[in-house]
Amino acid sequence: MSAVVPVAIIMGSQSDWPTMGKAAEMLDKLGVAYDARIVSAHRTPERMVDFAKGAADEGFKVVIAGAGGAAHLPGMVAALTHLPVLGVPVQSKALSGQDSLLSIVQMPAGIPVGTLAIGEAGAANAGLLAAAILATTDEGLAERLKAFRAAQTESVAIRPS
Amino acid sequence: MSAVVPVAIIMGSQSDWPTMGKAAEMLDKLGVAYDARIVSAHRTPERMVDFAKGAADEGFKVVIAGAGGAAHLPGMVAALTHLPVLGVPVQSKALSGQDSLLSIVQMPAGIPVGTLAIGEAGAANAGLLAAAILATTDEGLAERLKAFRAAQTESVAIRPS
Amino acid sequence: MSAVVPVAIIMGSQSDWPTMGKAAEMLDKLGVAYDARIVSAHRTPERMVDFAKGAADEGFKVVIAGAGGAAHLPGMVAALTHLPVLGVPVQSKALSGQDSLLSIVQMPAGIPVGTLAIGEAGAANAGLLAAAILATTDEGLAERLKAFRAAQTESVAIRPS
Amino acid sequence: MSAVVPVAIIMGSQSDWPTMGKAAEMLDKLGVAYDARIVSAHRTPERMVDFAKGAADEGFKVVIAGAGGAAHLPGMVAALTHLPVLGVPVQSKALSGQDSLLSIVQMPAGIPVGTLAIGEAGAANAGLLAAAILATTDEGLAERLKAFRAAQTESVAIRPS
Amino acid sequence: MSAVVPVAIIMGSQSDWPTMGKAAEMLDKLGVAYDARIVSAHRTPERMVDFAKGAADEGFKVVIAGAGGAAHLPGMVAALTHLPVLGVPVQSKALSGQDSLLSIVQMPAGIPVGTLAIGEAGAANAGLLAAAILATTDEGLAERLKAFRAAQTESVAIRPS
Amino acid sequence: MSAVVPVAIIMGSQSDWPTMGKAAEMLDKLGVAYDARIVSAHRTPERMVDFAKGAADEGFKVVIAGAGGAAHLPGMVAALTHLPVLGVPVQSKALSGQDSLLSIVQMPAGIPVGTLAIGEAGAANAGLLAAAILATTDEGLAERLKAFRAAQTESVAIRPS
Amino acid sequence: MSAVVPVAIIMGSQSDWPTMGKAAEMLDKLGVAYDARIVSAHRTPERMVDFAKGAADEGFKVVIAGAGGAAHLPGMVAALTHLPVLGVPVQSKALSGQDSLLSIVQMPAGIPVGTLAIGEAGAANAGLLAAAILATTDEGLAERLKAFRAAQTESVAIRPS
Amino acid sequence: MSAVVPVAIIMGSQSDWPTMGKAAEMLDKLGVAYDARIVSAHRTPERMVDFAKGAADEGFKVVIAGAGGAAHLPGMVAALTHLPVLGVPVQSKALSGQDSLLSIVQMPAGIPVGTLAIGEAGAANAGLLAAAILATTDEGLAERLKAFRAAQTESVAIRPS
Repeated sequence: MSAVVPVAIIMGSQSDWPTMGKAAEMLDKLGVAYDARIVSAHRTPERMVDFAKGAADEGFKVVIAGAGGAAHLPGMVAALTHLPVLGVPVQSKALSGQDSLLSIVQMPAGIPVGTLAIGEAGAANAGLLAAAILATTDEGLAERLKAFRAAQTESVAIRPS
Repeated sequence: MSAVVPVAIIMGSQSDWPTMGKAAEMLDKLGVAYDARIVSAHRTPERMVDFAKGAADEGFKVVIAGAGGAAHLPGMVAALTHLPVLGVPVQSKALSGQDSLLSIVQMPAGIPVGTLAIGEAGAANAGLLAAAILATTDEGLAERLKAFRAAQTESVAIRPS
Repeated sequence: MSAVVPVAIIMGSQSDWPTMGKAAEMLDKLGVAYDARIVSAHRTPERMVDFAKGAADEGFKVVIAGAGGAAHLPGMVAALTHLPVLGVPVQSKALSGQDSLLSIVQMPAGIPVGTLAIGEAGAANAGLLAAAILATTDEGLAERLKAFRAAQTESVAIRPS
Repeated sequence: MSAVVPVAIIMGSQSDWPTMGKAAEMLDKLGVAYDARIVSAHRTPERMVDFAKGAADEGFKVVIAGAGGAAHLPGMVAALTHLPVLGVPVQSKALSGQDSLLSIVQMPAGIPVGTLAIGEAGAANAGLLAAAILATTDEGLAERLKAFRAAQTESVAIRPS
Repeated sequence: MSAVVPVAIIMGSQSDWPTMGKAAEMLDKLGVAYDARIVSAHRTPERMVDFAKGAADEGFKVVIAGAGGAAHLPGMVAALTHLPVLGVPVQSKALSGQDSLLSIVQMPAGIPVGTLAIGEAGAANAGLLAAAILATTDEGLAERLKAFRAAQTESVAIRPS
Repeated sequence: MSAVVPVAIIMGSQSDWPTMGKAAEMLDKLGVAYDARIVSAHRTPERMVDFAKGAADEGFKVVIAGAGGAAHLPGMVAALTHLPVLGVPVQSKALSGQDSLLSIVQMPAGIPVGTLAIGEAGAANAGLLAAAILATTDEGLAERLKAFRAAQTESVAIRPS
Repeated sequence: MSAVVPVAIIMGSQSDWPTMGKAAEMLDKLGVAYDARIVSAHRTPERMVDFAKGAADEGFKVVIAGAGGAAHLPGMVAALTHLPVLGVPVQSKALSGQDSLLSIVQMPAGIPVGTLAIGEAGAANAGLLAAAILATTDEGLAERLKAFRAAQTESVAIRPS
Repeated sequence: MSAVVPVAIIMGSQSDWPTMGKAAEMLDKLGVAYDARIVSAHRTPERMVDFAKGAADEGFKVVIAGAGGAAHLPGMVAALTHLPVLGVPVQSKALSGQDSLLSIVQMPAGIPVGTLAIGEAGAANAGLLAAAILATTDEGLAERLKAFRAAQTESVAIRPS
C-alpha cells in the first residue's frame, strides 16, 4: 500500500549510502516510512526512467535523490515526475562536492530540484524537509516535527566545554 | 482566510523583486495564491522573526525566500518555522551569486532550506517546487502542474533556427 | 541513408544554437554531414531517451551535445548509447559556464563524455574532434583535416599589429 | 558587573570551540575578560535574538561570533545590536571554510561584520582585534597590546632551521 | 587637535575613491570626522610606513584601509600600528575582488584586519563599524548610530513594487 | 605492426601511472591493445614533439594523454597530430586537479582535446571513450563494449546495504 | 646584432596584443629593446619550438610570453630554453583569466615560469621585471629603473579627489 | 663579500622552511650561493623594510620570497627594491595556497613579482629561475644550468612501471 511509504530515497551508487543513510535515519526518527533504492542515472538509465515515471503511481509523495560528481540523478528524476524532488550533493573526491552541488542546483527554469547542503548534513536535512513537506497536511507529523525541533533547541548547551 | 494563500514569497530587498517576481509569475500561471513581502533578515530582523514564527498560523504552507550576498533570510526563517522553506540565491554584484548560493544551501543538519538555482531560473523553479509540494495533496493543482509540464515539453522545437 | 550523416549535433535549447552553430560551421568547412536537433534532457526527457537509444541505428557515428548550467544532456545521452559523445559546456549567465563544465566533465567511471572548452571555442573544437574521430578510418577526411590545420598554421602572422 | 566582561565570545556549536578557544586564549594573554557561550542562529534562534538584543545592556562592548558553513550567527547578531561584531569563519568539512567566509563577510550595506581569517588564526585575531578596539580608550590595555606585539616581533628568529 | 579626527580612511589609489567614498559618506551621516588619504603600500611604501607608525600619535582611533588585487595595504598598516584596522576589498577587474578579499582577510595569527564585504557595501560598512567602535565609549554617537539603524529599519517597504 | 596497437597512453611522469593505469586496465578488459609511455611536455619536450608528429605513422588511432598541474601534454600533442587526443587531468596536490582540468580543457578553437574527469574515473573513461571511437568501425569491439555496458548495468544492486 | 635586443615578447595570438602591448610600452619607457612576435604553441607548434630553441642564440636574455585559456606558450618555451621566461595570463572570456593563470603558474618542479598578474597590469609588470633582470648587470638601466620607480612614487597624490 | 651571495631566500615564518628549503637545495645543486632568512612582513615589518631597502647594497642580485595566506612579503619587498623578486605561494591550511597565490601574483602595474607554483615545486623553480637570471651573464652557471636540464631530460624513463 503506497500511502504508507511516502518517501523514496534513491542514490546513484552503493558508495552514496553512508551519506544518504542520514536521510533514512532522520525519517526513522520522525516516524516517516521510506524506501531506499540504488538508481543510477548513468549506469542504469532505464531503471531511472522507470522509477521516475512510476514514482507517483507507486504512491511516493516526495523523492530524495543523492549523487556525486556530475550528479544527474536528481535533475533527471525531476524531469520525469511532477513530484517534488530534493537533491543531496554527495561529497566527491577531487572537488569535495563542488561539482555535485552545481550539477544538482543549477537546474534550468521549468524543472526544479530543492537542493540541500553537501554531504551528511544535507542528507539529514533532506529527510527533515521531506517530513516538513508531508507535515503540511499531516497534523501528527507536524507535531512530531515540532517536538524534534524543540528537543534540538533544548540540546544546545549554554557554554562550550 | 489563510488557506487561500498557501505560499509566501519573501525577499530581503526591493531590489530582489525583478528576480523573485519570476516565482510570482509561475504561481500565477499555475493558479496558486501567494503573498509577496519584503522581509530583511538584516535590516528588519524583528519583522523577520515575527513573520517566521507566525507563518504557519497565517495559513502559509510553503515559504519561498530570496536573498543575495550573505543571504541569511531563507536559513533564519527556516530556523523559526517548521514549514518547508525554499531558498533562491539572488545574483550578487561582485560574486555573481556564488556567495548567495553558499550562504543559503550550506545549512547545518537540523534546519533545511531547499535551494534552487541562482537568479531568475531559480525563482521560477521555487514557484514550481512550491506548487509541486502543494500538489501532493491537491489533485486539481497536480493536473495543472502536469499540463504545464506537458506544454513545456511540447514547446521545444525539433531543430534550432 | 544514415551513413551520410555521421554526426549528430544536439543541444538543450534554442538559446544554445549561437554557440553550437560553431560546431556546425566547422563540420561544414571539413565536408562532414551532420544533423542539428534540440533535445532537452530536462524538458523533453523522453525525446532524449529515444534519440540516444536510436542514435547508432540512425547511423550516427559521433554525437556532439551542448548544454548549460546543470548540463545533463551529454552525460545522459552517453548513458544510453555506446557511441562516442562529445560535450560542449555552454557559457551560463551567473557562473560563466563553470557549472556547465563540471556537470559535463565530472562523469563517473563507466560513462565517458569527451569534454571541450566552455563556449564557442569548445563548440568549434567539438566539430574538429568529431572529424578527427571519423578521419581515423576516412583517408579523404584525414587529408581535409590536415589541410585545415596547415592553413590554420599559415594564417598566423609573424608579428602583432 | 558587566563592565568587567567587555567581550562576548559566541559560537554556533560546541564543535566550534576548538577554533574559538583561540580567541579566548588571546584575551586571557592580554588580560581582557570575556564570556564564552553557545548561541546557535539556527538551532536556538530565540536565544540568539535575546542575546543580541541584550548584549549592550549586559555591558558587552564587543561581540566575537564564530560559525561554519551557512554561517549566519555573526550577521544576525550584528543585525540586532549596535555593538561592533567580529566574525570568525570556522573551517567547514566539504568547502574548507569558503562557505563560512562568504556567509560572514558579504554582508549588505547597513549591517557590518568585521571578518577575520578562516579557522584558528582568525579566532586568535578576533581576540586581538577586540582588544585593539577596547584599547582605543584603555591605556593599560594599549600598553599590554603593544608589549604583546613587541614580544611577537622579538620571537621571530633571524634564520630558519 | 587629533581627537576631532578619529578615523583615517586610506586607499591604495585614486581609482579606489569611488568605492571608499562610501565610507566617507557614512561617517558624514553619523557625524564622525575623518581624514581621507592615498597611501599605496606598493607605490609609496615609505609613506605607508610613516602613516602607520604615526597613526596613533596623529590621534586616529580607527583606520579604514581599502585596496584591490594583491591588496596589501590593510595588512601592512595593521602590522605597523596597534590601532584597529578595518579592510575593504575593492572590486578588481579580472577576479571581481576575490583576490582583494583573500589578500585582506587571510591574515596570519598575530596581526588582525577586520574585513568587510567586497566593494561599495563593504566601504559603507567600514564606516559603520568604525562608528560602532567609537560608540562603545561615546554615548552621543551610540544614539546617532541607533537612530540610523532605526531609520534604516523604517525605510524597508512592506511589499515589493 | 601498428594496426594491432591502436591506442597510445602517454603521461607526463611516472607518478601519473597509478591514475593512468586505469585507462590501461579498461582497454585490457575490452581487448584493445595499447602502448603506455612517459612523455613529458616539460622535461622531454623533444620526445614529445617526436612522439606527436610520428603518432599517426606509428599506426596509433587515438592518443590518451594524462598530466597534472600546468598540464600541457594533451594540448601540445593535439597541436602536433591530427589524431583524436583525449586528456585526463591528474589530481594535483595543492589544487586537487582544478589546475589540471582547466589547463587541459580550455583549449582555443582549432586544437581540440576531449577531456575526461579528474583522476582515476577520468582515466578509466578515457579508455572507454578510446574504445568507443575505435568501435565506430569495429563491429567486434562494438559488441564487447555493449557487453561491458550491459554487465555494468547488471552489477548495480537494487537496494543499498 | 642580438645584444641590442635583449627581450623577446611573444604571444599566442594577435588578439593578445592589446594586453601584451603594455609590456612593450614599459620597455620603451625604460629604453630596453625588444622584439614582439606571434608564436602560438597550439597553432604554430613548430614555430614555437624553433623560436624557443633558438632564443638564446638570437641573443635574447629574457622571454616574455603571454597567452590565454589553456595557456601553454610560456611553459613550453620554458621547456625548450634555459633563458628566464616570464608569463602573462591574458584575461579569457568565460573564466576571466583564472584558466590562463593556473595554466601558466602551476608548472612542475624543473621548468619555471615567473608569472605576473592577469591582464594589462601583468603585461606591464613583465616589462618591468625583464628590465629588473637586465638591470642586475646594467648600471645605466638600473638607474633608469630607479628613476621610473621614484617618479611613480612621486605621482601618487596625497588625497583622493 | 656580497658578490658571492647573489640570492636571498626569505620567508615569513619558520614553518615555511620545509617548502622554501627546496629553493635552497636547487641553488646548492647549481652551485649558487644564497642566504636564507626569516623576514615577516606582518610580525617584523621593520626588519622587512630594512632588508628590502638594503638588499641591493648587500650585493644580492635576486630575492626569492615565500609566504602563505595573505602573503604580503614578496610584494612588499618588491615595493622597496628594484631587484627582481620571485614569489613562492606557500600552501596554506584552509585554502591550499589559493589565497597565497592570489596575494602574490595579482600585483598592480608598477611593482612586479615573478610568481611560481604553489608549494615545493614552486620553491624549487624559484631556485631555478634565480639561477637562470644570473646565468644570463654568467657563462659557467649557464653551462651548469644546461647540464642540469639535460640530466633532468635523461632521467625520464621511457615507460611507466
